[in-house]
Amino acid sequence: MAKQLNIGIVGYKFMGRAHSNAWKKAPLFFDVPSQPVLKVACGRHQASLQEFAQKWGWEETETDWKKMIARPDIDIVDVALPQNLHYEVAMAAARAGKHIFCEKPLAMNSRQAEEMLRVCEENHVTHYLNHNYRRLPAVLLAKKMIETGKLGRLFHWRCAYQQDWIVDPNFPLTWQLRKETAQAGPQWDLNSHAVDLAHFLIGDIDTVSALTTNFVTERPLADESTSGNLTAETLGDQKGPVTVEDAALMLVQFQNGAVGSFEATRFATGKKNGLTFEIYGSKGSVKFDLERMNELQYYSLNDEAGEQGFRTIQATDPTHAYMQGWWPPGHIIGYEHTFVHAVVDFLWAIDGNKPIEPNFSDGLRILTVLEAGLESAATGQRVKLN
Amino acid sequence: MAKQLNIGIVGYKFMGRAHSNAWKKAPLFFDVPSQPVLKVACGRHQASLQEFAQKWGWEETETDWKKMIARPDIDIVDVALPQNLHYEVAMAAARAGKHIFCEKPLAMNSRQAEEMLRVCEENHVTHYLNHNYRRLPAVLLAKKMIETGKLGRLFHWRCAYQQDWIVDPNFPLTWQLRKETAQAGPQWDLNSHAVDLAHFLIGDIDTVSALTTNFVTERPLADESTSGNLTAETLGDQKGPVTVEDAALMLVQFQNGAVGSFEATRFATGKKNGLTFEIYGSKGSVKFDLERMNELQYYSLNDEAGEQGFRTIQATDPTHAYMQGWWPPGHIIGYEHTFVHAVVDFLWAIDGNKPIEPNFSDGLRILTVLEAGLESAATGQRVKLN
Amino acid sequence: MAKQLNIGIVGYKFMGRAHSNAWKKAPLFFDVPSQPVLKVACGRHQASLQEFAQKWGWEETETDWKKMIARPDIDIVDVALPQNLHYEVAMAAARAGKHIFCEKPLAMNSRQAEEMLRVCEENHVTHYLNHNYRRLPAVLLAKKMIETGKLGRLFHWRCAYQQDWIVDPNFPLTWQLRKETAQAGPQWDLNSHAVDLAHFLIGDIDTVSALTTNFVTERPLADESTSGNLTAETLGDQKGPVTVEDAALMLVQFQNGAVGSFEATRFATGKKNGLTFEIYGSKGSVKFDLERMNELQYYSLNDEAGEQGFRTIQATDPTHAYMQGWWPPGHIIGYEHTFVHAVVDFLWAIDGNKPIEPNFSDGLRILTVLEAGLESAATGQRVKLN
Amino acid sequence: MAKQLNIGIVGYKFMGRAHSNAWKKAPLFFDVPSQPVLKVACGRHQASLQEFAQKWGWEETETDWKKMIARPDIDIVDVALPQNLHYEVAMAAARAGKHIFCEKPLAMNSRQAEEMLRVCEENHVTHYLNHNYRRLPAVLLAKKMIETGKLGRLFHWRCAYQQDWIVDPNFPLTWQLRKETAQAGPQWDLNSHAVDLAHFLIGDIDTVSALTTNFVTERPLADESTSGNLTAETLGDQKGPVTVEDAALMLVQFQNGAVGSFEATRFATGKKNGLTFEIYGSKGSVKFDLERMNELQYYSLNDEAGEQGFRTIQATDPTHAYMQGWWPPGHIIGYEHTFVHAVVDFLWAIDGNKPIEPNFSDGLRILTVLEAGLESAATGQRVKLN
Repeated sequence: MAKQLNIGIVGYKFMGRAHSNAWKKAPLFFDVPSQPVLKVACGRHQASLQEFAQKWGWEETETDWKKMIARPDIDIVDVALPQNLHYEVAMAAARAGKHIFCEKPLAMNSRQAEEMLRVCEENHVTHYLNHNYRRLPAVLLAKKMIETGKLGRLFHWRCAYQQDWIVDPNFPLTWQLRKETAQAGPQWDLNSHAVDLAHFLIGDIDTVSALTTNFVTERPLADESTSGNLTAETLGDQKGPVTVEDAALMLVQFQNGAVGSFEATRFATGKKNGLTFEIYGSKGSVKFDLERMNELQYYSLNDEAGEQGFRTIQATDPTHAYMQGWWPPGHIIGYEHTFVHAVVDFLWAIDGNKPIEPNFSDGLRILTVLEAGLESAATGQRVKLN
Repeated sequence: MAKQLNIGIVGYKFMGRAHSNAWKKAPLFFDVPSQPVLKVACGRHQASLQEFAQKWGWEETETDWKKMIARPDIDIVDVALPQNLHYEVAMAAARAGKHIFCEKPLAMNSRQAEEMLRVCEENHVTHYLNHNYRRLPAVLLAKKMIETGKLGRLFHWRCAYQQDWIVDPNFPLTWQLRKETAQAGPQWDLNSHAVDLAHFLIGDIDTVSALTTNFVTERPLADESTSGNLTAETLGDQKGPVTVEDAALMLVQFQNGAVGSFEATRFATGKKNGLTFEIYGSKGSVKFDLERMNELQYYSLNDEAGEQGFRTIQATDPTHAYMQGWWPPGHIIGYEHTFVHAVVDFLWAIDGNKPIEPNFSDGLRILTVLEAGLESAATGQRVKLN
Repeated sequence: MAKQLNIGIVGYKFMGRAHSNAWKKAPLFFDVPSQPVLKVACGRHQASLQEFAQKWGWEETETDWKKMIARPDIDIVDVALPQNLHYEVAMAAARAGKHIFCEKPLAMNSRQAEEMLRVCEENHVTHYLNHNYRRLPAVLLAKKMIETGKLGRLFHWRCAYQQDWIVDPNFPLTWQLRKETAQAGPQWDLNSHAVDLAHFLIGDIDTVSALTTNFVTERPLADESTSGNLTAETLGDQKGPVTVEDAALMLVQFQNGAVGSFEATRFATGKKNGLTFEIYGSKGSVKFDLERMNELQYYSLNDEAGEQGFRTIQATDPTHAYMQGWWPPGHIIGYEHTFVHAVVDFLWAIDGNKPIEPNFSDGLRILTVLEAGLESAATGQRVKLN
Repeated sequence: MAKQLNIGIVGYKFMGRAHSNAWKKAPLFFDVPSQPVLKVACGRHQASLQEFAQKWGWEETETDWKKMIARPDIDIVDVALPQNLHYEVAMAAARAGKHIFCEKPLAMNSRQAEEMLRVCEENHVTHYLNHNYRRLPAVLLAKKMIETGKLGRLFHWRCAYQQDWIVDPNFPLTWQLRKETAQAGPQWDLNSHAVDLAHFLIGDIDTVSALTTNFVTERPLADESTSGNLTAETLGDQKGPVTVEDAALMLVQFQNGAVGSFEATRFATGKKNGLTFEIYGSKGSVKFDLERMNELQYYSLNDEAGEQGFRTIQATDPTHAYMQGWWPPGHIIGYEHTFVHAVVDFLWAIDGNKPIEPNFSDGLRILTVLEAGLESAATGQRVKLN
């Protein structure tokens, strides 16, 4: 592993930590073709940036991301920022010929996404969009079952992504709740993951009917100067309007004839990070729940009559994707491991000069669906894609 | 219990059995104000009718339901027929001043339902529509929690009613798959139950967006002469078109601001009679699964921080509705018990000259929603009710 | 079904109701060779006996069980009494040539059981011992899997029967808590069921090591004059000693080389009627939980590598034992249905003059194990049977 | 974090990896008082040792562990070896004044354990025994509930540790299956964890009754030269005797009056690393399952009547032990995280010159119980401790 790739990361909060951990951990548990070097960490607040860099072993810090991108020794730009900043940074990185490891959702709209994709392609850089749940062993098992025909013809996709972090009406108006920074609410944040999984597992979407709503229309203003995460302090008595939806529901027709439903919300009391999907096919079915992410439920019509049932597969065997890198069967992995898997595949993609999925093309497809959903919610009409 | 009420039942198949059992069992396990007498069983095929009547203890048989309704000694008409026959029988029964215990779905359309309701009211008969799942102890516990404010303001209703009995494309074209006898597919059969529960637990619906689809468009013709149930023999090689939908999905806005989703299908491989719902509110949430009908999942924000979680309540305590009539805690009840509960309440309603719910008024509300769903599915537009 | 069999029941409380229901229901849902007639109900308190008989349709009442047994028109004696009364009633019934349907546990000790068995055999009467859980479709599915070799060689039996009805130290000293009426606590009441299932599913037991304990040693005296069930009123401040164990645990070696564990308790807070067992074999495993009695968990090493997992089989298909008599797949049955299954098989056994299982021979085997358990608990030594 | 502590590790296989990961990760996610330095990795096979050291960043390698212990710059000796090598290495380390981080089970017998403890105490070194499951947030939540009286008086401990990795009779005779290297089978490997949890959660054990058995008595000889894990190649047709038990079951009385059961096996087909326990108390109960290690089931008698049930707490909130170091609520952790928690506490213990639990004293207590279990299994008699 003589080769090295220098990484410059922009952003050092929740995703900054998760990405840093993944860059460090990937070579310890997996064979990788080159050693990722944590070269430069980039952020606006020098003090907290410094602390972050020292803890995680980033060699240098930089408060001007443009300068960082301009450095010839940087091979990879890791975009660990809110979505309103993706476009500018990714465009610059692509133009500078850097490979891009980008957080989701890809951008503020499909026009940005189109451009980002085009510029990446023109500059022949490897672009990765971090819809990390694709790389869960249990999800990849579902994918394999579909590809090998175990589920037969697909009929139904039923998916919910449910959280509850803003049920309290006094939760402050953080950046995720304002259109200028977030573009949309759970439609962007959660349904982007859900649509990515649907694209991955079922296929392209043909029509969308949607519904969005707001349960709480104004909230206390937030002090986000020190927050790196979902929570923030309020700024006292002042309130401001919530300008993104609180919940987004969609019904879709897939091009292959399957039908699907999506339900994304931040108001599902009791659900912390509850992403569930069910797929029903002519030969079998699967169910998945992110809160038990090491498990896949599988029903097979091939089982003998009278002995059929949903079986709980623990996707922790060496036969399951990535699990040979970790521990013996029955020793579960957690949330952060998906990032490690992504880093491993990203390094191999760069090395082989081959694309990795999901990438900006997938991101564009996703945003197109999400925008159609918002349009349908606004007009009350089913929207046909393409 | 000196009083007696004479029952005449029309129909003697799946629902004929379930109703007969309920009439017999209600007085054994519950206090009832009058003794139901299994007087006349009515059906077209004398031989099988005879067998049914003898087994279940119906005193007489009759092949002409009009004659039966004309009898002055009949107090209650039990309509245990497919939906295409409800209108005519119920209208005649109401006009003859009989109380009506009617299977669901109420009718072929909302016009029929309106008339049926009007005639019942004009004739001051007690009318009951058998959406039996309302009378499950676990469902009634959810209802009580909502009414006592335990869930707070309601945000989400998420419901699926999933079966798989026609996944096989060679399953024959039974009456449930033809518009002239069934009017619609799972939208009628399954979503009628689901919408009834939504009305009961959440409230009135304001708008509907829907999607329907067909996975199998033609099927072998069926010989239903001997079948009393979901299954039937095929009539050889001949096929006919399926004229109702195979799956029906809806998104709704409730008048109280909650949003909801419905998914009804006969193509969910592995689901036999899988009715699930989730309700999320500002103070708590509940989840229900008909395949584990004695249980309710409940999450409460009143529980201490760090100790919150969905708890599985076994609704088998004496505190739970109807359970004092049955067995000690932990001894579960099954499908047929809901029919017994309905009979008990029906007898008390007649005795007290008070309405029982759900009734034809509820049935009308349900059909109005279901029709709006079919309209939305056809036009691609959100439909506003009222 | 011209033939009739006249039943005389002794006892009219919890089990009196459950048995009456079963006698009435069996011919409605199943083919039976003869019609059971609810002839005479027998009990000590004329008033409540009368009420019981009228409700359930017992034609006559009798306060002296010896007189009832002496009647030549009685074919079957149903012993629905506490265990301290089984011996005397069953002995008299057998000597009078009556078939016997007897509640569990069989008797106060194995000597009684031996005699009861002998006298039944001498008098050629059909004797049935109501360990009803054997007749659950899910349990019978496990049995079938074992018999057809699906589990391979059996290694482990792991079983718990957990209730919590006497956790409160002020729960009164009912008959179940006194040695003179109950002989033992959960070792008799609960482990009799558990050992019956172990005999049925695994085979004969070779050695027993056991442990019993008491958590509450004295309790308020009980007024049981009006109680028909587990609960009773206390008689004020007076207390008396609990003379049976509160919990009984056993480790066993089976003759076939499997090992097993049993845990029976009335102090498992949160468990109402929680009987669970797990069986592990060389080719597969099963798990069962009475609180979800329609389900069997099954793990098969025959499933493809990477796709193995415990599957939840809903034992509600027509392929499952007894389910053709009830409802379509997915429509669950409850506690009382097992009694109906027992009645059906009992009627066929009488008709065919063939034994039914479990019978008094099984009861004797069970009591022998339970006594060995009590002996081992007292001495601290492993006890070898035979 | 100016302070540094130099670590020397002995062993570089499964546990070598898990420990190395923990030493590296602890300072990234938690505040620690000193920086662990991966100084020397020690092992017998230079080539694989070298590879291990390079991958994980151990600065130096050493094939003679005595030399490593003799180095004055080593502060901590990490014993990541099979149990037959713990005694010698730990004794030497303690005598050299090194702090010890030791894998479980502690030793081959209680005599070794006693000596190890004594020498550690005489040399004032910090000694830690890695029963890592104590440091799961869900387990610590159970502990807190017990300590704050939420479960009331404890009645029952019911525990099973079930694996299935040697069900195949052709699985070779690895070191874990031979007495000279392993001392015992699941009694040592699995029940050591289970007894540690019982000590932690319930308290000291007073008596033990046990049962052990062998299902497969001889196996193909193993080639373990290259294996670092549970699996190994066979050496062809030759077989040798299995000299440890395949399953070990125990019943115990605790000093506080609770009773308990343990079941440890490598023959539970379908269970990979299935450690479950249930605790029943007078006010509430908890259940835990290692395969869903982020969850604790909790039943409280304080919940309102009719609303009680086992609730599934996701122990991923910031209120749960260690979770503030990781991710937002609902983002689960996995197996390896427990090792990180142990390292964090170990570093603080050294820094504060305070003991950490579990330590060699706990290890001695555990081995005393396990030996009593083997004695009881051999003699058939209950064994009283102390």
